[in-house]
Order: sequence, then structure tokens, then C-alpha cells
Amino acid sequence: MRLYDFPNAPNPRRVRVVAAEKGIDLEYVTIDMTKRQHKTPEFLRKNPSGKIPVLELADGTCIGESIAICRYLEAIEPTPNLFGEDALEIAQIEMAHRQIELELMSQIGTSWVNGPIVAKAGLVEPIEAAKQRSDGLTKAFYRRMDKELSERDYIAGNRYSIADITAAIAIDFAGALVSLKPDVELSNLWAWHARVAGRPGYANA
Amino acid sequence: MRLYDFPNAPNPRRVRVVAAEKGIDLEYVTIDMTKRQHKTPEFLRKNPSGKIPVLELADGTCIGESIAICRYLEAIEPTPNLFGEDALEIAQIEMAHRQIELELMSQIGTSWVNGPIVAKAGLVEPIEAAKQRSDGLTKAFYRRMDKELSERDYIAGNRYSIADITAAIAIDFAGALVSLKPDVELSNLWAWHARVAGRPGYANA
Repeated sequence: MRLYDFPNAPNPRRVRVVAAEKGIDLEYVTIDMTKRQHKTPEFLRKNPSGKIPVLELADGTCIGESIAICRYLEAIEPTPNLFGEDALEIAQIEMAHRQIELELMSQIGTSWVNGPIVAKAGLVEPIEAAKQRSDGLTKAFYRRMDKELSERDYIAGNRYSIADITAAIAIDFAGALVSLKPDVELSNLWAWHARVAGRPGYANA
Repeated sequence: MRLYDFPNAPNPRRVRVVAAEKGIDLEYVTIDMTKRQHKTPEFLRKNPSGKIPVLELADGTCIGESIAICRYLEAIEPTPNLFGEDALEIAQIEMAHRQIELELMSQIGTSWVNGPIVAKAGLVEPIEAAKQRSDGLTKAFYRRMDKELSERDYIAGNRYSIADITAAIAIDFAGALVSLKPDVELSNLWAWHARVAGRPGYANA
């Protein structure tokens, strides 16, 4: 299986971490987003959304959307389980994961799209008011995470799941490229981050 | 099981449709969002995100996020299957569903948040440039849907899934409350919408 990938982007990193956790080998093909290689006619045939990652199966079937790819990997290699084992756990992990995606990762994404790096590339006209709103919502969510992580070890409860992978990757991206690193005094958040970052599957992918 | 619900909101409608398709009876409790009942301290204990729907189980456990609730219902009542049967179908439905959520529903949401009804309620300072961008992206996605639905009967392939439920509900909301009804000449889109809207589980929920 081949993964169309780009090293600095958070979404393909989610797939790389899940593959590493499960011990699945993928062939990586770099699509240089800075050269708009994800918007070529050839790539749009693989994914009409013009986004990476894309997983290409042996028969040429292409799967876009990082979490769709992660669910495919979970189905073909169920261990370690990352999306939940029974009805309640499936629901609780999905709830936590969606809150991370909708209330944290998407806000970081808005700050990124309307921030200086994208503006300098001339791709999108930045909307400063939108960035201010998403910066504020991101910081508020970090405080909520810190509070919740005083009561549990992982985002969705007491074990590692896809919600931790998405959250840690979003925060790493926010710190490296969006000037939204969580404050050092959010000690529960940082203790959790160290637990995730210390996993070989996370650190090496 | 009790569902905290609000009649006009698209997200709880997703749960109502899934429950109806599966023949699951829920006890509905209306949370009046216009009176901010989803932001009271009592409700925030059920869902710290302050959003509906929330499913409350017999033991008091609360599950937020509409799709987390839908996955719970899928796990306890697998028929009809709405999220995929095998690895490839699970991935293809998740891909299609996420594209609908991220590229259509979230854009409609941005136009709603920055539109006249929310502004009149005084909840959010509208950002006109953000609304113009999301209006344009919504209309572009409708054209893509129309093209793709010339080649298949349903959003994720040749059978009904959660992707159809989310897409049809998002479009109904866009038409009713965001002035973003798809153009009548998008005939493939409207033929698909009629297929979905004609299902008793969709129409009556």
C-alpha cells in the first residue's frame, strides 16, 4: 500500500502514527504541497478534494481523508485498538476525537489558513478577525484540556486512542507553525503530551 | 435512552434519522437553544462542549457529538448498516462522509454563524468576508456533488449511508435557514435528494 504524504502536514502524520502503532509498512510518496502537487489533474483523479494523505491500494483504489485511512488500517490490523472495542467505548472515543477535531484542530486550521505563512504564499486572502477568533478558541480549549487531563490520563479516558494521536499532532503543528503553543503552566496538558510523545509509534512516525 | 434535542438544528436531526432507520425508540427532551439552555451549568455537566445532541443512557452516562451517538446506535442495532460492512466500505463511507462534513457542512456552518439570524441574536460578531468565502465554497461543492451524482446513486457509492443522511440534512438546513439552497439546474443533486427524502426513516424524523 502506498501513502501519498507530505512531511510537515498534520493529517498525513496521523496516518503515519497509526500505521507505526500497528506495525503496518507503507510505501511513502511525497506530494510537495508547496509546489501544489496535490492540485494537479493527475492527483485530483486520486482524490477530487485535492488533499493529502491518500492511500492507494494494490488494485489502484484510492482512499482520501486521514481518518478514513486510519479506520481502514484499524479494520485490517485491529491491534492495538485505537477506535474502541464495544459500543460505549466506540462512542466515547468518537465523542472525544470529534471534540478535538471540531473544537481544537479546526480552530488551529483557521488560524493557519489566515496566518502569515499562507498569506506569504499568496494562496488565501487572510481574514484577521477570523484568526483572532480561532486563536482565542484554541487557547480556551487548551485550558479545558488541562482541566480534563487532571482527571484522566488520556483524552478519551484511561487508555491511548486516536483522540490522543489527533490532539498531540494538532498541538505539535500549532506550536511549530501557527504560534499557538500551549502555555507552560498547563501542566496536566504537558504531562499528557509527554506520555503520548514517549510512545515509539508516535515519536518515530 | 434519552436524547437531548432541538427540532430545527441539523446535528440532532442526524441522530433522529439514524434512530428511525434502525427502529430505535428514544425519549426526546427539547433543549431550547434560543434560550441558551445548552449553556447552563446543568447541561454543561452532561456535555462540556455545550452542544446538542446528547444521548443519556439508563445509568446516566452521557454521549455528545451526533456521529458518536450514531455510531453507538449502529453498534447496538447493526441493521440497516450505515457506516460500512468491511474494511474498504468502512473507509469509503468515512471518506465520503468526512468530505461532506468538512467541505460542505462546515462551510454552511460558517455561513450560518456569520449570517443575519445569528447576528440578530447578538451571539457572534459576523465576519462578512468569512461568510462570502464559505458561501462560495458551498456553491462549488454543490457543483461537485452534482457531477459525482451523475455517476452513482448515493454519496458514498451505490447504497444509502450516513454520508447521505449528513449531506441531505446539511442541504435542507442551508436551504431553509442560510439562503444556500442548491440551484434547480443541479438535477443529479436534486434526484439524489429526492431518493433520500423519500425514505420513511428520513422523512419522518
